[in-house]
Amino acid sequence: MSILVAVPDRAMLERLGPQPAGVELTVWALGSEPLDRRFDLLVLPYMIAPAELAGLAGQAVSVVQSQMLGFDGVEHHLPPALAYCNAVGVHEAATAELALALMLASQRGLPDFVRAAGSGSWAHVRYPGLTMQRVLVLGAGGVGREVARRLQPFDVDLVRVARTARTDDTGPVHSWDELDGLLPTAHAVVLAVPLDDATRGLVDDAFLGRMMPGALLVNVARGAVVDTDALTRAVADGRVRAAIDVTDPEPLPPQHPLWRLPGALVSPHVGGDIGSMNLRIDRLVREQVDLLRTGQPPKNVVVGG
Amino acid sequence: MSILVAVPDRAMLERLGPQPAGVELTVWALGSEPLDRRFDLLVLPYMIAPAELAGLAGQAVSVVQSQMLGFDGVEHHLPPALAYCNAVGVHEAATAELALALMLASQRGLPDFVRAAGSGSWAHVRYPGLTMQRVLVLGAGGVGREVARRLQPFDVDLVRVARTARTDDTGPVHSWDELDGLLPTAHAVVLAVPLDDATRGLVDDAFLGRMMPGALLVNVARGAVVDTDALTRAVADGRVRAAIDVTDPEPLPPQHPLWRLPGALVSPHVGGDIGSMNLRIDRLVREQVDLLRTGQPPKNVVVGG
Repeated sequence: MSILVAVPDRAMLERLGPQPAGVELTVWALGSEPLDRRFDLLVLPYMIAPAELAGLAGQAVSVVQSQMLGFDGVEHHLPPALAYCNAVGVHEAATAELALALMLASQRGLPDFVRAAGSGSWAHVRYPGLTMQRVLVLGAGGVGREVARRLQPFDVDLVRVARTARTDDTGPVHSWDELDGLLPTAHAVVLAVPLDDATRGLVDDAFLGRMMPGALLVNVARGAVVDTDALTRAVADGRVRAAIDVTDPEPLPPQHPLWRLPGALVSPHVGGDIGSMNLRIDRLVREQVDLLRTGQPPKNVVVGG
Repeated sequence: MSILVAVPDRAMLERLGPQPAGVELTVWALGSEPLDRRFDLLVLPYMIAPAELAGLAGQAVSVVQSQMLGFDGVEHHLPPALAYCNAVGVHEAATAELALALMLASQRGLPDFVRAAGSGSWAHVRYPGLTMQRVLVLGAGGVGREVARRLQPFDVDLVRVARTARTDDTGPVHSWDELDGLLPTAHAVVLAVPLDDATRGLVDDAFLGRMMPGALLVNVARGAVVDTDALTRAVADGRVRAAIDVTDPEPLPPQHPLWRLPGALVSPHVGGDIGSMNLRIDRLVREQVDLLRTGQPPKNVVVGG
């Protein structure tokens, strides 16, 4: 078999290097002039909105490999007869790492120390810390499991919640039915759920109102899991604190009040975006190429196919 | 037996609550008028300089319980015939937690994001992260072991170094003799050693010069383990980054350049100072009271005795 693989930029082409016999590698950017040939595999650019899939119009493609884990909205924009694969295994570790970074920084006052540094102020104040606190992790998929795994040595009381109660290799998971009772007991709540009809707007006034006063909400999922106006009110009132990597809308507009509330820490959707990401996405692309050139179905097909 | 126990403030007195028969609890602040009675146990205030032990002059005391782990300089200031106990078990978890907080925040760009928030700037930039990086932890005592334990699930290449090579429950430890060869290979170096003649000024121009360009130095040990001028030069030149909870001098003066270098993150010596610290120091004081009232020697005597 001979297959044609398109990657979004020359940097990935060069990283992937020489290919096995029968694999032709080319650069094709989303929205470019369609070629007269079919791509057996097309790798998308890293962070794109689902609407940008319109850039596939007129180009024949069999399999699309995304560089993102979340695929909310893709089903509304993907051209027919295409298999869309998400980037399982690429971002879970880095996103969980960021969840811990946001949580630890907030619980130890690091944003306050950064601000105090501007005036050279040695502002010794006691912060809550994480040790001996109760942390609720919502979501037991790839990211949720990796967050739980990293939390385990921190001497926290770890409570995991997902749609259905179960036990996995990281321990027991409670069901969503128990969330109302568990929320008031947690010092920190980490959102690690996919965005779908069940999770859109999940964190609203009622959810925030059930959280322990002064507790921390960490969002490394998707911005629309949270009602941004409700969160802004709760943080402005000092009822909860927030450490969020994703926002709705995204990017967060420059004048949005969340930017300047002392109880909010905002990172610009960098969950998976760290130095070692290229190694992981390249490995996944190589795996898909190997599957396709040997006549096997691609892995991680989540839409179409 | 009947014993007299002095605590530094009314808050601790109230937290400790009713005592067993034969134990009298009182408040006595360091430097107060000496009493005409001997304290079997005197608990010091949390963060004091060794020179403040002069405040014991004229007061008869058998055992002093510090609320700190480090005891550098105590031997020069402790009155004779006194047993000085450090706070083993109180600060290791919290200090290791802060080491992870400083490391993760620096590796994920959180200080930059806090500064960018002032102008509402969504500054998406790739940072190195921690996943798949090599982290060298210097020191395999209580704090070093707790740092290592917390690092293990982060998919890092963990390299531990201490005075003598050994293997403990957290894995193998290299000897200091190997440090010169290991330093250039590490993306981050965590200092978790006590301050003594062997470690004072350990991180000098030569040490910093051997570090990988752009690597991160984390100090949760004592400020004087690092030559502050050498570190300031290295960070100002962009050769290394720093995330430090301890400085020399301490507090860091308001005009010190380290405060305002983008590659430096400074916290005001808050390693052990978190919400759950009181639970741990109170538990230790209760243990010492129990030992003394039953005629046994105190634990954790590190100077005198």
